[in-house]
Amino acid sequence: MSSNHVLLDDKTQKLLFREARTANTFTAEPVGEEQIQALYDLVKWAPTSFNQQPVRVALIRSEEAKSRLVPLMWDTNQGKTAGAPLNAVLAADLEFHENLPEQFPVFPQAKDVFFAEEEARVESALLNATLQIGYFILGVRAVGLAAGPMSGFYADKVSEEFFPGGRHRALLVVNIGKPGPDAWYDRMPRLAYDRVFTSH
Amino acid sequence: MSSNHVLLDDKTQKLLFREARTANTFTAEPVGEEQIQALYDLVKWAPTSFNQQPVRVALIRSEEAKSRLVPLMWDTNQGKTAGAPLNAVLAADLEFHENLPEQFPVFPQAKDVFFAEEEARVESALLNATLQIGYFILGVRAVGLAAGPMSGFYADKVSEEFFPGGRHRALLVVNIGKPGPDAWYDRMPRLAYDRVFTSH
Repeated sequence: MSSNHVLLDDKTQKLLFREARTANTFTAEPVGEEQIQALYDLVKWAPTSFNQQPVRVALIRSEEAKSRLVPLMWDTNQGKTAGAPLNAVLAADLEFHENLPEQFPVFPQAKDVFFAEEEARVESALLNATLQIGYFILGVRAVGLAAGPMSGFYADKVSEEFFPGGRHRALLVVNIGKPGPDAWYDRMPRLAYDRVFTSH
Repeated sequence: MSSNHVLLDDKTQKLLFREARTANTFTAEPVGEEQIQALYDLVKWAPTSFNQQPVRVALIRSEEAKSRLVPLMWDTNQGKTAGAPLNAVLAADLEFHENLPEQFPVFPQAKDVFFAEEEARVESALLNATLQIGYFILGVRAVGLAAGPMSGFYADKVSEEFFPGGRHRALLVVNIGKPGPDAWYDRMPRLAYDRVFTSH
C-alpha cells in the first residue's frame, strides 16, 4: 500500500501511519522526559493560525498525580490510564492571545483585532490546540512510542484538576509508552476516498 | 536540531516539520488527483475517537468553484486562495454517527449510547475532524507539496456553499501546491518547552 507520490520511506510510513496503532495496554518501561522534549522540539514547528500555539500539556507520571487523574476518566478508560507509564493531558489555553504580539510579530495587533472577543478567541483556541494535538499524536509515534488517545473523561473536572484557574480546557488525554500484551483491537475500517472527498 | 530520540531521518524531519513552511504564494503547476488520493491513503490511518472519521473535504480546482470560494475568504486571504492551484475546504460531518456501526464494529451501540445527543455529537465531530485536519496538513507535506492553512473565512457561508444541507461545518481552508516566489514570512518563534509542559 505504499505509494510513489509519498516522499516518506516505507519504514516511516509504517511508523507514523500504516502500522501505528492506538495502544490499550503498556509495558512498565518508563518514558523519559528527554523523549517528550525531543517530540516537542519536532512537532512545535507545525502550523497554527497566527502562530498562536495554544496547546498546553500536563504530563502525569507520579502515583499521586495518577491517583487524581484516573477517577476523572470514564470507567472504560480507567484501567488503561492507570497502566500507562505516562499520561499527557492536552488542553487549550483560552487566553493564548496574551502571547500573540510575541508569537506573531508581523502583526502584533492581531491580539486585539481578532481575539479581544471571547467567542472568537475560544473557537480559535479549540481549533488550533486540537491541530496541535494531532501533531503531538504523530510525534509520539515519531519517537518510537505508542499513543492511546482518549476523549472519554470528565473534561471540566480534569481541566480544573490539572489546569486550575479556569483559563484552560482539557481536550484529550493520551496514554504514552511501549505497547504491552494484546495492546490493540483488530484494525478497523477507514472510509473510502470517495466518501470523504468531493471535487469542484 | 535533529535528535537521536526521533526515529525519522533528517530529510523526513525537515520535510514534515523543521523546514516545512506555510506557503502564501504558489506556482501554477497543477496538483494531481492521484497525489491527494495518495495523501489520504496515508493519513487515513491516524486515529479518531471510536474510529469516527468525521472530516469531509471539498477540493476546489475549477475556475467556477474558485469564483465561489474566493469572495467567502477574508480579504487578506483572497489573493492567496485565488493563486493556489488547489484549495481544500475541510469540514466536520456533524452526523458522522450514522456510519459508526460500520466504522466501530467492536461496539456498534456507540452511535446511540454516546452520540444520540446533539451537543456531545457536535463536540466530538469538531474535535476529531480537527485532529484529522492536523494529519491532513502533514500529509500535504508528505507528498512534497506546500500547505497554506487558513482559518480566516466566513465559515457559515463556506459551509453552505460547498456542503449544502446544514450537516457540515467548515473548519479550515488549505491552499495546496508548489511554493511560488517569496512564499513565506521569516520563521516565527515557537514557545519554549517549559511554557507548554508541566510535570506532575
